[in-house]
Amino acid sequence: MIVARTITDLKEHLYALSEGGRRSIGFVPTMGYLHEGHASLMREAKAKNVIAVLSVFVNPTQFGPNEDLDRYPRDEERDLKLADECGIDVVFLPTVQQMYPKPSKTSIIVSGLTDRLCGASRPRHFDGVGLIVGKLFHLIKPDRVYFGMKDAQQVAVIQQMVDDLNFDTVIVPCPTVREPDGLALSSRNVYLSAEHRAQAVILSQSLEQARGWIQEETMTAGSLLSRVKERIGSAPDAVIDYVELLRYPSLEPLDEQELTHKLESPALLAMAVKFGTTRLIDNSLYHPSGGV
Amino acid sequence: MIVARTITDLKEHLYALSEGGRRSIGFVPTMGYLHEGHASLMREAKAKNVIAVLSVFVNPTQFGPNEDLDRYPRDEERDLKLADECGIDVVFLPTVQQMYPKPSKTSIIVSGLTDRLCGASRPRHFDGVGLIVGKLFHLIKPDRVYFGMKDAQQVAVIQQMVDDLNFDTVIVPCPTVREPDGLALSSRNVYLSAEHRAQAVILSQSLEQARGWIQEETMTAGSLLSRVKERIGSAPDAVIDYVELLRYPSLEPLDEQELTHKLESPALLAMAVKFGTTRLIDNSLYHPSGGV
Repeated sequence: MIVARTITDLKEHLYALSEGGRRSIGFVPTMGYLHEGHASLMREAKAKNVIAVLSVFVNPTQFGPNEDLDRYPRDEERDLKLADECGIDVVFLPTVQQMYPKPSKTSIIVSGLTDRLCGASRPRHFDGVGLIVGKLFHLIKPDRVYFGMKDAQQVAVIQQMVDDLNFDTVIVPCPTVREPDGLALSSRNVYLSAEHRAQAVILSQSLEQARGWIQEETMTAGSLLSRVKERIGSAPDAVIDYVELLRYPSLEPLDEQELTHKLESPALLAMAVKFGTTRLIDNSLYHPSGGV
Repeated sequence: MIVARTITDLKEHLYALSEGGRRSIGFVPTMGYLHEGHASLMREAKAKNVIAVLSVFVNPTQFGPNEDLDRYPRDEERDLKLADECGIDVVFLPTVQQMYPKPSKTSIIVSGLTDRLCGASRPRHFDGVGLIVGKLFHLIKPDRVYFGMKDAQQVAVIQQMVDDLNFDTVIVPCPTVREPDGLALSSRNVYLSAEHRAQAVILSQSLEQARGWIQEETMTAGSLLSRVKERIGSAPDAVIDYVELLRYPSLEPLDEQELTHKLESPALLAMAVKFGTTRLIDNSLYHPSGGV
């Protein structure tokens, strides 16, 4: 496994390995502190492409001024070990100076999709995501890029950007990986106290219950959201940031009637909930057929 | 010469011709109604690359609501003939529907550089340029892209975007091509009445005179601009949109003292002047050495 810490190094290795672009490249962009969710993406990237590339970069432009950039967890040694086990060929581990030698005057901004859910709570977050993703796509030129559906809005935003800008890459959304009790894996779970960790299972539990509720004959979006919020509220320290039901991937609101009839497009039930200073997100997609 | 009118067609032909990216691609993006300025770019693209690609697309997103989108001159037959003579291998001639099947939710915005000169007179113009250039770069994957220095600000903006977003392409600025009397070639020159055409030579004449004035011992930016504006004003129908002297390519203002000492970086004297409803631009770069 090659570890490239500079852009020059990365390009040289990729050019050689891909034989000038003739061998397919699968790419997994991450902020490191890798867990089994990332591992599933890395294995998929290696299974479906000749070359699998991982990037580990805690991207400052996607953090707000009062967010957790400085305390974002890092463990390079463990990340490299896991990447190697998953069959990654090249790890790109740049410094901030490599990626932003000067502050970027250029922005990639996706409008509409980014003003709701996490975009409402984290203004400019998706501008930072768009910028780093655009840069990494240009550096790595992946045939396929693997993202976890835990960040469903991120997947929708990046797919929109790829379509609008004619990026020549396929976005592959992959299922959320969960702890045995249902908690979605996240690098931020490490922040949780034992007490909050126990309560945090409420997110996946409420999503699972909603799967039943959504099929009730007279269910409306409003009642569903009330029930889910009530369920989350049963965890004593849960503070809801948002719970929303939207069409996916357009992230447009559903008609109030839509649930009582057959769903026309997949619906995304998405939530962000804080326990102390730790903000967790989770979501579930409900398909018109009633399947997952 | 291949003429591709759809993205699918373009990609197929480019893939075959470039042998999957192994042969170099030189690219000339234009809005058509080609003249000798474009021809010089096309010849350069063919001379320095295995494959030369021309795009002809009057991009609606870079025109303001009261600009000349609807009357922008077009002559496809003549364009194809000239492209063929210049050795172009592939012409990409998409419809608006091909490039914008839906309105783009994604923008590429370069800040700073775009709020002055033409960016001040044409708000959002460079957002439209950034968007279409980004899309075309992703579709064509050029090794080198050729732009005329008549649009010096456009060159600076695109170079900034390429640097910030790590596009893997080289921007090649090429000299402005002029009529025998000095008028910079432009597709918009066709709008000029005979009387305005005669007066329009004032742009290049004033730039040429400024080349002498800038070397005067006690010259300041303020006096230089006054003299140039006075000179342009000697054309009875000239209405100045802007005349500015800026560092190039940062487009930052020069210090007032800078002219009286040796210039530290190239200075761009740029102007936009209207004759009737036709807006012409021109510019000249003055190098620290005093050369062109």
